[in-house]
Amino acid sequence: MKVLLTGASGFVGRHLLARLVRAGAEVHAVGRTPPTPLPGCYWHTLDLLDAAPRYALLQDLKPTHLIHLAWTTAHGHYWHDPRNHDWVLASLALLDEFAAVGGEHALFAGTCAEDDWRKPTQPPSGGCTAATRYGRSKAALRLLALDRAEQLGLPLAWGRIYFPFGPGEQPQRLVPSLSRQLLAGLPAATGPGTLERDFVYVGDLAAMMMLVSERRHAGALDLSTGRATPIGTLAAELAELAQRPDLLRVGALPAREGDPQRLVGSDDVLRSLGWHAEIGLSEGLRHTLAWWRAQHQGSVHENQ
Amino acid sequence: MKVLLTGASGFVGRHLLARLVRAGAEVHAVGRTPPTPLPGCYWHTLDLLDAAPRYALLQDLKPTHLIHLAWTTAHGHYWHDPRNHDWVLASLALLDEFAAVGGEHALFAGTCAEDDWRKPTQPPSGGCTAATRYGRSKAALRLLALDRAEQLGLPLAWGRIYFPFGPGEQPQRLVPSLSRQLLAGLPAATGPGTLERDFVYVGDLAAMMMLVSERRHAGALDLSTGRATPIGTLAAELAELAQRPDLLRVGALPAREGDPQRLVGSDDVLRSLGWHAEIGLSEGLRHTLAWWRAQHQGSVHENQ
Repeated sequence: MKVLLTGASGFVGRHLLARLVRAGAEVHAVGRTPPTPLPGCYWHTLDLLDAAPRYALLQDLKPTHLIHLAWTTAHGHYWHDPRNHDWVLASLALLDEFAAVGGEHALFAGTCAEDDWRKPTQPPSGGCTAATRYGRSKAALRLLALDRAEQLGLPLAWGRIYFPFGPGEQPQRLVPSLSRQLLAGLPAATGPGTLERDFVYVGDLAAMMMLVSERRHAGALDLSTGRATPIGTLAAELAELAQRPDLLRVGALPAREGDPQRLVGSDDVLRSLGWHAEIGLSEGLRHTLAWWRAQHQGSVHENQ
Repeated sequence: MKVLLTGASGFVGRHLLARLVRAGAEVHAVGRTPPTPLPGCYWHTLDLLDAAPRYALLQDLKPTHLIHLAWTTAHGHYWHDPRNHDWVLASLALLDEFAAVGGEHALFAGTCAEDDWRKPTQPPSGGCTAATRYGRSKAALRLLALDRAEQLGLPLAWGRIYFPFGPGEQPQRLVPSLSRQLLAGLPAATGPGTLERDFVYVGDLAAMMMLVSERRHAGALDLSTGRATPIGTLAAELAELAQRPDLLRVGALPAREGDPQRLVGSDDVLRSLGWHAEIGLSEGLRHTLAWWRAQHQGSVHENQ
């Protein structure tokens, strides 16, 4: 397969890119800033919001598979970035352009934030409105893109991403910040330990995406383990791996407003495609901590 | 106020147009086919999907209020018409163009069909997907337009329409078809009489829309009576008014697949704006039947 991968320099994109290349696919990666060169991957430096070069690239490449992860993703800012709307329109155009050059299957990245997390307390007809512009924009794109794909006769999978973690994640996020504190011998604090999340090891997430593309699944699905893990349990497991349970301060940080008690997807569709987790939570945390340890040692060396 | 009204030649649009003119507003109505001339109303013949003339009209008029009812509405066909998507994009552009010329308030027509009527049986994260392309497109526009309006600093009301009825409704629909059968002395059949709907007299709906525009309400709301009426009850009331209860055949038609048991909105927001029904269901049915009687007699005269 000849894959066009957008958002290839992001956290999930880098893992998926490496896996696609290992699997022998012809991979064309798109991003605004070229990464470290990777053998077997063609890199195209491009802003996908810019219509003319995007159109030209599709005409030129004629990929058979499209995996579209690119979006506005600046940490913190992306939840309310007005450019979320530009990404809705550009993504719809990309879908049309991909179909026009004979594309065979597309996978678009959705998010668990499409849902209205306050749902149970909303009046019946006021629901279906995510709390953030990011969530609302992704939900709108899901509604429009799945419709459009059906009309084009193109199988499109809409894969809702939950809580990926693993090597290379942005350092401010939960698993990286805990790992770094523990490895530095500093107190590692979390918010309420009872909140449950669907944590997905990024290598497993990349494998899920490849499976969905290969099987040419059409429709929305959760890229989910189907398992809810309390944040306190995850933190304790990480502290055990780091052999520093003494540093753990579960619940020391305040709850964030609007944080729902439980966010977990369903793995029913994935399992119907033959999915089984390769790495899983415990092994994933081990890999991640090892990666941060290498980074930490690297930075200690650099500082010496 | 200087109002730009789109969809002015539709069922709801015609009633709203007459009411705006009576209220002394400067009304600019837009549609593809000019209606019978109405004193006090300026008519602009235009396809709103055509960007250049739409832009020029906004630049020329600079309306203070926009009431946007236009959409693809061919009976039966509109539920799955691919042009639903064109209306999403054109409506977003219209909103931007209206804000750019100093627009002060916009009201966009939503629909109770935005909701996922199968909601109770769906898995948690698979919800928020209406059953029709029409419903999904309106839902997507609501998500994007309310966001965009907030960003533009423009108050936008998104008014979900339930089940309007009244003079001039398309003859295939429930109240017209019952009225015509009863007046012709023919059996009047309905589907299951227990299904409950939020029926809104079209004159009341027009009054709701004017109130929302005048009060410059921002956000989504139901244009609803807040009351569910069983279809059997409505049909019986109509048959009584026509003095032909003997002709009524409630439940004689099969249930339509996917028809939900109960579709009713909330009138909480409307009431917070000072709303009280002017006509209501019974009086509305009386007006409607009288109108069909006049049509019926007219057609009899014409045939003589």
